[in-house]
Amino acid sequence: MTDDFSSPRHPEARIFRLVIEYDGSGFHGWQRQKSDRTVQAVIESALFTMTGENIVVSGSGRTDAGVHALAQAASFRTVSRLTAAAFLKGLNSLLPDDVTIHACEPVHNGFHARFDARGKHYRYHIRNTPLAPAIGRQFVWHIRMPLNVPAMAKAAAFLIGTHDFKSFEGAGSPRNHTVRTLTRATVTAEENGNIAVDMEADGFLRFMVRNIVGTLVDVGMGKIPAPEVVAILEAKDRSRASATAPPQGLFLMQVRY
Amino acid sequence: MTDDFSSPRHPEARIFRLVIEYDGSGFHGWQRQKSDRTVQAVIESALFTMTGENIVVSGSGRTDAGVHALAQAASFRTVSRLTAAAFLKGLNSLLPDDVTIHACEPVHNGFHARFDARGKHYRYHIRNTPLAPAIGRQFVWHIRMPLNVPAMAKAAAFLIGTHDFKSFEGAGSPRNHTVRTLTRATVTAEENGNIAVDMEADGFLRFMVRNIVGTLVDVGMGKIPAPEVVAILEAKDRSRASATAPPQGLFLMQVRY
Repeated sequence: MTDDFSSPRHPEARIFRLVIEYDGSGFHGWQRQKSDRTVQAVIESALFTMTGENIVVSGSGRTDAGVHALAQAASFRTVSRLTAAAFLKGLNSLLPDDVTIHACEPVHNGFHARFDARGKHYRYHIRNTPLAPAIGRQFVWHIRMPLNVPAMAKAAAFLIGTHDFKSFEGAGSPRNHTVRTLTRATVTAEENGNIAVDMEADGFLRFMVRNIVGTLVDVGMGKIPAPEVVAILEAKDRSRASATAPPQGLFLMQVRY
Repeated sequence: MTDDFSSPRHPEARIFRLVIEYDGSGFHGWQRQKSDRTVQAVIESALFTMTGENIVVSGSGRTDAGVHALAQAASFRTVSRLTAAAFLKGLNSLLPDDVTIHACEPVHNGFHARFDARGKHYRYHIRNTPLAPAIGRQFVWHIRMPLNVPAMAKAAAFLIGTHDFKSFEGAGSPRNHTVRTLTRATVTAEENGNIAVDMEADGFLRFMVRNIVGTLVDVGMGKIPAPEVVAILEAKDRSRASATAPPQGLFLMQVRY
């Protein structure tokens, strides 16, 4: 499938932006793949049913297998005359129940969910209790050992600012530019042993949130002193940071435009 | 399997009480069945692995397919010399991840989780939003039409007290005694369009909570005036109450002894 309608041959094409919630448990991530079930693929399939067009849905970015979204953003072009309200209603009636479209709105020509995104907010949920939860286990990383939340918060604060986050980039996925501006990095103890890690940035490298969370958890366990995250950051070496936190605790909360 | 160790031939048998959390999504309810996966069966299977005994686990009551529990109670007899702490640890390591044992404690001889239960607390979760949630859909009843929560709360309050709840008993499961004492029946609007219905009683008839919730939702939709629940109750006729609410919104919160 190619984005046929982006060509000058279709000047009448319109662009819509979607806001999408999904439970990542049953998906092999956002991005369309040959055979695995993905969020992009089920939305494109529903759009094909509605329009007969092979529409490409461009997400604000990929989310990995098992990662959830409360408000992923995506855009698509279509020559169909359907209204935004008709797309919203039609998609929600056609899509499986682990995907909900919360908004569909027309956007200016040339809009692209990935290239125009100005920032993202991710939240990572840790359940820090002696016993693993049965209910909601698909949405948290359970850690038995009591974590030092103030130490984690202190370590997270060291990461705020514009830095080269190469140390926290997933191995095997190098990008040319690994400098990002982190505007928020908080660790908050909530009730019932829940801990929330919130990060906002102009963009994130692959696995960046999960690699930072893995490192913060090592700080919370006392394996790494909080100030050492500065040295890990400055090393620009993935092997210095901790193991990647598992996907199911991660939620894409918002994409800013 | 029979409860061999309750016989006088085993005076050395001890009794333990369990507190059990489970995500009902993957279970055909609590009670052991011939072939379907049930909570009782997976716990009995784990106990067999630990002790070699065909132990019968007696729940405080059945929960139906799809219903969840934060703190179901159950008891079992064993001649094994394992400690309560060993049972707790062993069960949690053997059980699938949709069941968690939160407590195991020795109780007096003759204790039985069902017969000794003095009361139960159930909570039912409604999500009252225009769009169905993707995340957490296994744990709520989604209702699109805006509900009148104060009217529901008023109707619920009429049910408090000692009454014959035959109108709210599941069809085809008549009991001799259908009188129960409801000590709490509240309907609370929470954030994000969530509504919680809490009920506490000395005991519940089959489908009683879900039949009451179905009726309260009809009150919330304006189909039934709040005071009419009194006439429905007094009719002692299941056909007067509304349809049974779906199971996935229901949580067994606590069993009192």
